[in-house]
Amino acid sequence: MLLSNFPNYSYKINNQISVYFSHKELNGEVLPPNFLFEVSVVIDVLRATSTIVTALNNGAKEIIPFEEIKEALEFKNKINEKNLLLCGERGGIKPEGFELGNSPLEFTSEIVKDKSLILTTTNGTRAFLKAFKISNKVYIASFLNVSSTVEILSKYNNIAIVCAGNNGSVSYEDTQLAGFIIEKLLSKKDYSLSDSAKIAYNLWKSLKKPDFTGEHAKKLIELGFQKDVDYCQNIDKISIVCEGIRQPQNLLKVKIIKTKI
Amino acid sequence: MLLSNFPNYSYKINNQISVYFSHKELNGEVLPPNFLFEVSVVIDVLRATSTIVTALNNGAKEIIPFEEIKEALEFKNKINEKNLLLCGERGGIKPEGFELGNSPLEFTSEIVKDKSLILTTTNGTRAFLKAFKISNKVYIASFLNVSSTVEILSKYNNIAIVCAGNNGSVSYEDTQLAGFIIEKLLSKKDYSLSDSAKIAYNLWKSLKKPDFTGEHAKKLIELGFQKDVDYCQNIDKISIVCEGIRQPQNLLKVKIIKTKI
Repeated sequence: MLLSNFPNYSYKINNQISVYFSHKELNGEVLPPNFLFEVSVVIDVLRATSTIVTALNNGAKEIIPFEEIKEALEFKNKINEKNLLLCGERGGIKPEGFELGNSPLEFTSEIVKDKSLILTTTNGTRAFLKAFKISNKVYIASFLNVSSTVEILSKYNNIAIVCAGNNGSVSYEDTQLAGFIIEKLLSKKDYSLSDSAKIAYNLWKSLKKPDFTGEHAKKLIELGFQKDVDYCQNIDKISIVCEGIRQPQNLLKVKIIKTKI
Repeated sequence: MLLSNFPNYSYKINNQISVYFSHKELNGEVLPPNFLFEVSVVIDVLRATSTIVTALNNGAKEIIPFEEIKEALEFKNKINEKNLLLCGERGGIKPEGFELGNSPLEFTSEIVKDKSLILTTTNGTRAFLKAFKISNKVYIASFLNVSSTVEILSKYNNIAIVCAGNNGSVSYEDTQLAGFIIEKLLSKKDYSLSDSAKIAYNLWKSLKKPDFTGEHAKKLIELGFQKDVDYCQNIDKISIVCEGIRQPQNLLKVKIIKTKI
């Protein structure tokens, strides 16, 4: 397949930022060649990446993401270790038998310190796992740790921003953070922007601050998670960087850890 | 399949504007129930819908869209009539044996008056044909005829804006027109906006005028179509409304004609 057939990459790619609006855009059909990007950063502000960043900041040892609930349960049962907590959601709700949901406010240091957290969510963990298809280096971003994440992203020239989205559709909140990251990257050096990146950037330029009034925010508020929606809008409350690590020789394929800037 | 599983429609849909960023979003998997929307409007500003609007304004009798070149050729050969012109493009270029490409500037009244135009393009005609899957009423919009199109759209409550996009990815230019249409609709009455609609609306609020600097615009300029790129940015140069008509009992499934406001 020709490079020119891929979305966002008409010609030579250099010093470019591209945005994927949903993890579904990384399904087979539209996949670019392996490792086209030097780095990708995954966004699911409501709530998976906000939760991951909070948990690692509160001392969790690592996050072990799974695409399916079944896989997460199997892994938990196989290891059967008290330092391993089963966490996640489907449709915003904690599945039966899980120890924690996907609310960042649950992941206090009392609960998560030195623990390994198995995490499976509707969109966020899937986006994360798919990001490894397009780059070898994967970071996790939220509004909570945007500046420290941008600090590390700006070392790279070709950057993919992978928004988790809402069940295959674009997320208003994820796209805002994509735009904010682009604004911060452009303040450090020049990048050309894909069409999707131009759209995210202008969305942020129009808003200038988080506006969590999209469909998923409304749904979370209806489910009783107003505090989560408020919390996830905090900018730079946390200064850590979270990185996805590939472990090809290991039982776990990938994990997410706190890393150095 | 539950309504809540569809992108953009978390709950009750009423007085809502939703945007599809690419015709690929209307492929099987994510299709909402038939005729969920009262009306849809198709956008491919570079260049299919700008060409259709120009051709009908210059006196073309009708546009007959086909998804594939092969179908278009078969239809032309079957009818074999001098008032039938074969028009279109692939990758911006006129296919062999075609009488006209997809440059709106070719569609002068001298050439198209009283003619039926067979049209097949990479993204635009496909978006148009797919729009009939989600609504029974389909209009065609470009910057050239935006105000007259909005005049008719504002009679409806649930509106889908279907952008053709670039080969399955979002188009910077199409999304701008989506945002402009939303701004104009909101000035007439209240609508709630899907996440995608909020993004398009804020893109337009940030730009305030057409900014044709996206990937496909650059490609067209490289192919020598700078004049097309300039022309398609003209706002309200044309005051007609273009409508897609379903013809279930006919050899042609759909056609596009100039219609009354």
